[in-house]
Amino acid sequence: MDILTLQSALPTYFAPWVQALDLQVESFAADSVLLRLPHSDQLSRTGGMVCGQAMMAAADTAMVLALINHFGEFRPCTTVQMNSSFLKPLSKQDGLVEARVIRAGKSLAFGEIDIRGAHDGKSVCRASVTYALL
Amino acid sequence: MDILTLQSALPTYFAPWVQALDLQVESFAADSVLLRLPHSDQLSRTGGMVCGQAMMAAADTAMVLALINHFGEFRPCTTVQMNSSFLKPLSKQDGLVEARVIRAGKSLAFGEIDIRGAHDGKSVCRASVTYALL
Amino acid sequence: MDILTLQSALPTYFAPWVQALDLQVESFAADSVLLRLPHSDQLSRTGGMVCGQAMMAAADTAMVLALINHFGEFRPCTTVQMNSSFLKPLSKQDGLVEARVIRAGKSLAFGEIDIRGAHDGKSVCRASVTYALL
Amino acid sequence: MDILTLQSALPTYFAPWVQALDLQVESFAADSVLLRLPHSDQLSRTGGMVCGQAMMAAADTAMVLALINHFGEFRPCTTVQMNSSFLKPLSKQDGLVEARVIRAGKSLAFGEIDIRGAHDGKSVCRASVTYALL
Repeated sequence: MDILTLQSALPTYFAPWVQALDLQVESFAADSVLLRLPHSDQLSRTGGMVCGQAMMAAADTAMVLALINHFGEFRPCTTVQMNSSFLKPLSKQDGLVEARVIRAGKSLAFGEIDIRGAHDGKSVCRASVTYALL
Repeated sequence: MDILTLQSALPTYFAPWVQALDLQVESFAADSVLLRLPHSDQLSRTGGMVCGQAMMAAADTAMVLALINHFGEFRPCTTVQMNSSFLKPLSKQDGLVEARVIRAGKSLAFGEIDIRGAHDGKSVCRASVTYALL
Repeated sequence: MDILTLQSALPTYFAPWVQALDLQVESFAADSVLLRLPHSDQLSRTGGMVCGQAMMAAADTAMVLALINHFGEFRPCTTVQMNSSFLKPLSKQDGLVEARVIRAGKSLAFGEIDIRGAHDGKSVCRASVTYALL
Repeated sequence: MDILTLQSALPTYFAPWVQALDLQVESFAADSVLLRLPHSDQLSRTGGMVCGQAMMAAADTAMVLALINHFGEFRPCTTVQMNSSFLKPLSKQDGLVEARVIRAGKSLAFGEIDIRGAHDGKSVCRASVTYALL
């Protein structure tokens, strides 16, 4: 795996509206990927807070890249369920989105995502997802 | 409450990227609102399937409008947690997003969202949310 | 389907500790079952409040019966994920546990559960579950 | 904090049916507690698999102890929402239940629980919870 392959998955497999998040692949490890969600007025409500909708979308998207990283290639899959908790606001800073494959079986994969502030390092959103592998 | 007030909450309280969903308030009832999520290439992956990220964002957004409808005015609130299940794809048709307030207490509100195809009427996504009332 | 078949599934397929909930099948419909969770000191914390653990266990158990009702027979399945929201306490009264199959596909089934007070009829717990059909 | 204090919280604050899980406090750290869920026929379905209901109940219970550990004393709280994912069966072995406080604010606390096999160390259940602090 390499960063360019993961980065190029974004325009290949995702809707234009998701691409507008402008996610940047920062790094990857055995079972995880790390993406940057750049702060932007487009994603913010008044006060510079990144909207929760953008964080959920970033989390779900990052998890697909974590599965590509895990399998070594894109495998068709569909999100079955996603649960997101919002711990505190993400304000006036980029988010770092870490998606980790917890378990990948034959037909189901489980993952967890943590989003933290790029500046202060504090967790702002935690999510867990279930994917069906097609 | 009236449809115009609910519709105008979208540009007032939501990030531009969420406004790009182009949600349209169709109707409201005692404890629920119904929004249309127009089908669009911007929100679709190959094959005309609406991306899950757009459905989660529409669900969360619709719930805020359901709370405005419930309280008769906008009250500051924040999403604490959201759980979404994806039952089947939403393909080549608008979505109808129905958000319902299940319970609103002093500090917490609970809601549920159903998204179904505008053409075939089939449920494609069901979500439950917890909001903190500030 | 008949009530006796559903009731007899409880000692057949569930652990003794789950049977100790003493769930009673009250009725069933096309895609749902209704069970009674009798109030008991064994399930209660101080103040007569039914513990959340018992409500989650009742919800999960009721859903298995709803699937038996849906398929007309027991099919091996496993809970993949369950999300529970606790709206208000259930105090000094039985609970009525309604489990509904929302969608049953080839490999996954989705269901929703509502628990309300048998006396006052108020919703106290809402849950959604995903099952893998084996 | 000490193990005896945490252990004695079980008969003090939990329903007899929850006490029947026979949870044993093994250790605690800054923001987490580790409990043992002893394997038992009472909690098992045929084949020696621990039922999911017991794992959810153990997870929720462990989190209350993690909050006692975090605050240094019992604070009245109520579970608002809990999401559980079941990764694989827990068969013929004890479970180790690790509950961690992710964030505790003024009115809400967030936690995550991992249950793994005491023998093989593999994760079988992951849960996230939201508590309201009263």
